[in-house]
Amino acid sequence: MDKKIKVSIVGGSGYTGIELLRLLSLHPNVEILHITSRNDTGRFVCDIYPSLRGVLSHKFVNPDDIDLKDSNLVFFATPNGVAMKYAKNLIDNGIKVIDLAADFRIKNIKEWEKWYEMPHECPDIIEKAIYGLPEVNRNQIKNAQLVANPGCYPTAIQLALVPLLKEGLIDPLSIIADAKSGISGAGKKTQDGLLLSEASENFKAYSLSGHRHQPEIEENLSQNSKNGKVRVLFVPHLLPMVRGIHATIYANCIKDFDPSKIFNNFYDKEPFVDIMKANSCPETKSVRASNVCRISFYKVPNTQQLVILSVIDNLVKGAAGQALQNMNIMMGWQETLGLELIPLTP
Amino acid sequence: MDKKIKVSIVGGSGYTGIELLRLLSLHPNVEILHITSRNDTGRFVCDIYPSLRGVLSHKFVNPDDIDLKDSNLVFFATPNGVAMKYAKNLIDNGIKVIDLAADFRIKNIKEWEKWYEMPHECPDIIEKAIYGLPEVNRNQIKNAQLVANPGCYPTAIQLALVPLLKEGLIDPLSIIADAKSGISGAGKKTQDGLLLSEASENFKAYSLSGHRHQPEIEENLSQNSKNGKVRVLFVPHLLPMVRGIHATIYANCIKDFDPSKIFNNFYDKEPFVDIMKANSCPETKSVRASNVCRISFYKVPNTQQLVILSVIDNLVKGAAGQALQNMNIMMGWQETLGLELIPLTP
Amino acid sequence: MDKKIKVSIVGGSGYTGIELLRLLSLHPNVEILHITSRNDTGRFVCDIYPSLRGVLSHKFVNPDDIDLKDSNLVFFATPNGVAMKYAKNLIDNGIKVIDLAADFRIKNIKEWEKWYEMPHECPDIIEKAIYGLPEVNRNQIKNAQLVANPGCYPTAIQLALVPLLKEGLIDPLSIIADAKSGISGAGKKTQDGLLLSEASENFKAYSLSGHRHQPEIEENLSQNSKNGKVRVLFVPHLLPMVRGIHATIYANCIKDFDPSKIFNNFYDKEPFVDIMKANSCPETKSVRASNVCRISFYKVPNTQQLVILSVIDNLVKGAAGQALQNMNIMMGWQETLGLELIPLTP
Amino acid sequence: MDKKIKVSIVGGSGYTGIELLRLLSLHPNVEILHITSRNDTGRFVCDIYPSLRGVLSHKFVNPDDIDLKDSNLVFFATPNGVAMKYAKNLIDNGIKVIDLAADFRIKNIKEWEKWYEMPHECPDIIEKAIYGLPEVNRNQIKNAQLVANPGCYPTAIQLALVPLLKEGLIDPLSIIADAKSGISGAGKKTQDGLLLSEASENFKAYSLSGHRHQPEIEENLSQNSKNGKVRVLFVPHLLPMVRGIHATIYANCIKDFDPSKIFNNFYDKEPFVDIMKANSCPETKSVRASNVCRISFYKVPNTQQLVILSVIDNLVKGAAGQALQNMNIMMGWQETLGLELIPLTP
Repeated sequence: MDKKIKVSIVGGSGYTGIELLRLLSLHPNVEILHITSRNDTGRFVCDIYPSLRGVLSHKFVNPDDIDLKDSNLVFFATPNGVAMKYAKNLIDNGIKVIDLAADFRIKNIKEWEKWYEMPHECPDIIEKAIYGLPEVNRNQIKNAQLVANPGCYPTAIQLALVPLLKEGLIDPLSIIADAKSGISGAGKKTQDGLLLSEASENFKAYSLSGHRHQPEIEENLSQNSKNGKVRVLFVPHLLPMVRGIHATIYANCIKDFDPSKIFNNFYDKEPFVDIMKANSCPETKSVRASNVCRISFYKVPNTQQLVILSVIDNLVKGAAGQALQNMNIMMGWQETLGLELIPLTP
Repeated sequence: MDKKIKVSIVGGSGYTGIELLRLLSLHPNVEILHITSRNDTGRFVCDIYPSLRGVLSHKFVNPDDIDLKDSNLVFFATPNGVAMKYAKNLIDNGIKVIDLAADFRIKNIKEWEKWYEMPHECPDIIEKAIYGLPEVNRNQIKNAQLVANPGCYPTAIQLALVPLLKEGLIDPLSIIADAKSGISGAGKKTQDGLLLSEASENFKAYSLSGHRHQPEIEENLSQNSKNGKVRVLFVPHLLPMVRGIHATIYANCIKDFDPSKIFNNFYDKEPFVDIMKANSCPETKSVRASNVCRISFYKVPNTQQLVILSVIDNLVKGAAGQALQNMNIMMGWQETLGLELIPLTP
Repeated sequence: MDKKIKVSIVGGSGYTGIELLRLLSLHPNVEILHITSRNDTGRFVCDIYPSLRGVLSHKFVNPDDIDLKDSNLVFFATPNGVAMKYAKNLIDNGIKVIDLAADFRIKNIKEWEKWYEMPHECPDIIEKAIYGLPEVNRNQIKNAQLVANPGCYPTAIQLALVPLLKEGLIDPLSIIADAKSGISGAGKKTQDGLLLSEASENFKAYSLSGHRHQPEIEENLSQNSKNGKVRVLFVPHLLPMVRGIHATIYANCIKDFDPSKIFNNFYDKEPFVDIMKANSCPETKSVRASNVCRISFYKVPNTQQLVILSVIDNLVKGAAGQALQNMNIMMGWQETLGLELIPLTP
Repeated sequence: MDKKIKVSIVGGSGYTGIELLRLLSLHPNVEILHITSRNDTGRFVCDIYPSLRGVLSHKFVNPDDIDLKDSNLVFFATPNGVAMKYAKNLIDNGIKVIDLAADFRIKNIKEWEKWYEMPHECPDIIEKAIYGLPEVNRNQIKNAQLVANPGCYPTAIQLALVPLLKEGLIDPLSIIADAKSGISGAGKKTQDGLLLSEASENFKAYSLSGHRHQPEIEENLSQNSKNGKVRVLFVPHLLPMVRGIHATIYANCIKDFDPSKIFNNFYDKEPFVDIMKANSCPETKSVRASNVCRISFYKVPNTQQLVILSVIDNLVKGAAGQALQNMNIMMGWQETLGLELIPLTP
């Protein structure tokens, strides 16, 4: 039996934080040390999230009042711009770091600074950060000390495209990603548009002229593209529901091929990617509360067009679950440990 | 044809405000003069509520920048404590006032100050205020200059009980009102609990040990009770939906009577109260977006217990619609003017 | 004042039927004669739809038991394949007919029979049928005796594309329509997937390899295309909500142009089409319960790509509201009569 | 390590069935043998419930085609009236049986036959059946061969009342249970009222004049009442959401006591009952997808009235989870085995 490691969660009071706590509480090899929240310092975690009554007895602590270096691994479930203030010191002290925000997802610092509208505070360690998409970067993650956990949209979209781009089967400039996300993807923010009164029975696009996940998608896809730089027209939409991302992706084929064969070969041994039959339609509910990504596709007759459908739970495979998967890989544990989750239906 | 009057809405940016605007825009005898909002001053109303694009071209104005006395009638759709600052000046100048908040709903000032946790700023005109429940106080409303529009819960609950209490048919100390409200009843507040992520797929009671609508219900019911002071155990709950109140009311009968006869007699000529058959179950969706209250009831066999079910749309009969009904009565117009709304199904 | 006409609704018990009844009940020039339903014959309409209590006192009748020729105009809100059995006899007798189903939407009979999987029973009158998209075919509708009311998806998609195709501004073979519909678009069918337990908190594509609205869209768009035959890759999705269609449309521009100018010119005088600012995002809730279509667009920088967003209420502009609009035009009435509806928010 | 037992599920295609499969798939001591469904015979379970893709490879079988006696334990997740046809033969052969339907919940056969409107087919074994509410009947369940798994409403209501009735603290004739259930409680039935279009944004009472869970509640509570026969005025309501029961219970105290002490004493060692602080409000979402019941209460000042609030997930503690809990007890395993579920938030 593996010895337990001590993990801390910085920024534990948001939706990604609470989901991390749900999953870590059930992980056999982990002891939760600190859970920080500046706003909720001193309050019991389970007073804010009664679902954790009887599960966790921690209080939220102020990150300034504790020493994160007591931990073996630190998760950052903070807003963008926080992890970059702590990461260097932690990894210099041998602590492993997984950032669930965007601070280390993009190697191009200028691009990052343009989209995130702040100077990057530790550009020197960006190169050390591994982009934590296990199905693509597993070997690098194994030895990583700093993992940039991918965004939710990028996870759903990249898993649908990497097998095709790697083989040079689709035109890398032809890609359209029409993506729809449950509202928890926007985080626990008190904005009018996220209120049930406004968001329920409603559907709309947003960030039409540019979303921060676009450069992340393009940079990382380009690294896996046989035919050069990838451009994605990415249009996100807000669904009147809590959990789930559905990406409907359109691309032009530049070769003749059987998508079924390509996808099944690529994901053959993957525990968390499920390739469905051609022309079938994956449902977000079929992956809710689990770490699974389900993918299907449709070759449009008499054209070069290919439609790929990809669904994940944005809080699990799109955030906390993938973070655990990365932790398992970094620690040399079985990759599915603590992630044997069955989607919740109905 | 009636001449149009000028009306202004103070506090037009909340849910009660927007619903007032929806209804007033269709009212044939009304011209909307000012719509105030301190937070949104200078912005087009339809930029915040795109549903009003092409309907209203007003901008929100700061109430300090305009003279409300240009209006013939002023609606206050403000937080509690605002109308009481303006009302005296307005009614002294012959302007009619309808307050959709709670400033004038309770005659007992001490009780009011206890529940609303502030000193009342114009106690001298409270006596002049008429409680605007038309089915009970129509004659007084006709001549009122200041109408206190009832709360949403109190409307649903009182309409279910007044006919019984007036005749002394139920024990006034036996009443339990288990009430459930759509989330728009909480207003447009950015509280965590009102976010779709938290409020959808969720149900709970709240304000268990005391809700401000309780003294309003008890005081006004007591005035219509043949057998003295009424006490109500009132337990409100939050529904995972936008519009609708359902009150399930329990009371002990102290006489033998046919509830069907009592209710049908009392509401015989009422355009906005629909008495259903015994043992049927009114649905909130059957009154959504309309000014109707539907009531049903069930006499429990072999006991003295009576169950009464009452449904309204909290934003219409529970707020803006009832305000228009009161305006129609105050102006001597047909009571249903601008309120010929058919509930939205599905 | 116009004289009232007598209208009947065949198939009044579905969601399109009930919405027709809601709107017709408020129309000043209409008297509702018969409302048919084979399944619900003999039952009061308002027993099935309690929202109509106090509004309509009709019982559902069996269409075989009445003479539809007593009516001046007959609406068919029936499944596909019903109107074609009745239409010829009615129009031969001078009765106007509006079919809200698909029987007369496609001129190409072979195509129709392929998609609707039945022989067409009155191919000879298809040519007489006018496709009832008023913003495109208003003049023909004026003199029509038989109007094919467009499908919901086709309405949202065509209004977004006709101005561009008419001017030859986009490549007619490049169009992708990623469309999302509220679940009422599927009708009142008792299928597992439409149950709240399965459809809420869920999102998926459907009919991936072919949806009946596709030939309707392509045929009618092609008739309005300067550059020949239009092909649309149409992918419908199911939203976890009741009302609303959102079409996200992608096309390649073949000329340089200002979409704002094109759209505003085309829809300048249209009472039911609202062109929003470039890069803004129309919400389905902003048109809920109204006959409005709101359109916005985004020209992707450094590419030829244009994104167009179009929202309607599928039961109103996508069905019953458009049917009333067509009736108003056919009768020579003001086009907005009975359709001065303000969207319901929140 | 315990040896695995073979279990079969009769009626595996409903919501209780799928939830059983979700939980049993994760149970370390169980091997799933047969999953029956007459309607879906021959189809893969995961074709109907894609959430189980990769988890279960079973096909649904016809119960007539298999021998249930191959199993060590059989769960019946069937409609009422099915288990009673099989139970005798199974228990005569030493197979343990847990019926999640109502066939053995009521000892009074006449009462059962009145409410379930059919003759009982094996009245002789009703006496052997143990009512499977572990917190009340744990010792009897240990040795039971046939367990009647309680209904969802009865579970939530009884857990809130048994500690008080056992001590004779409340008037057994004063109880009102105003209960609200998520729609999955109605099962996977294709009824109009369960469609998302009708049930969302809607709330109503139902079965006003009598619900089958009432005799179950009264009979079983009476067996735990110090002061004789219990009568409950039970009014169920339908919530516009999938999972969750909230019971708001009203009772008159006949002694002075501290509810906190009573509840905490009674449930001190219970792993699945969480007693909250006085006046707090348990949320259904805080127990969603878990086997927990959370209870709170409010003593109304200056009266004898006590309000008790009780929430469960109707499919877990109200059905499949409690069935596993009963299995664990019957098998002598740790009671929480396979039930270490953390509620899903948000």
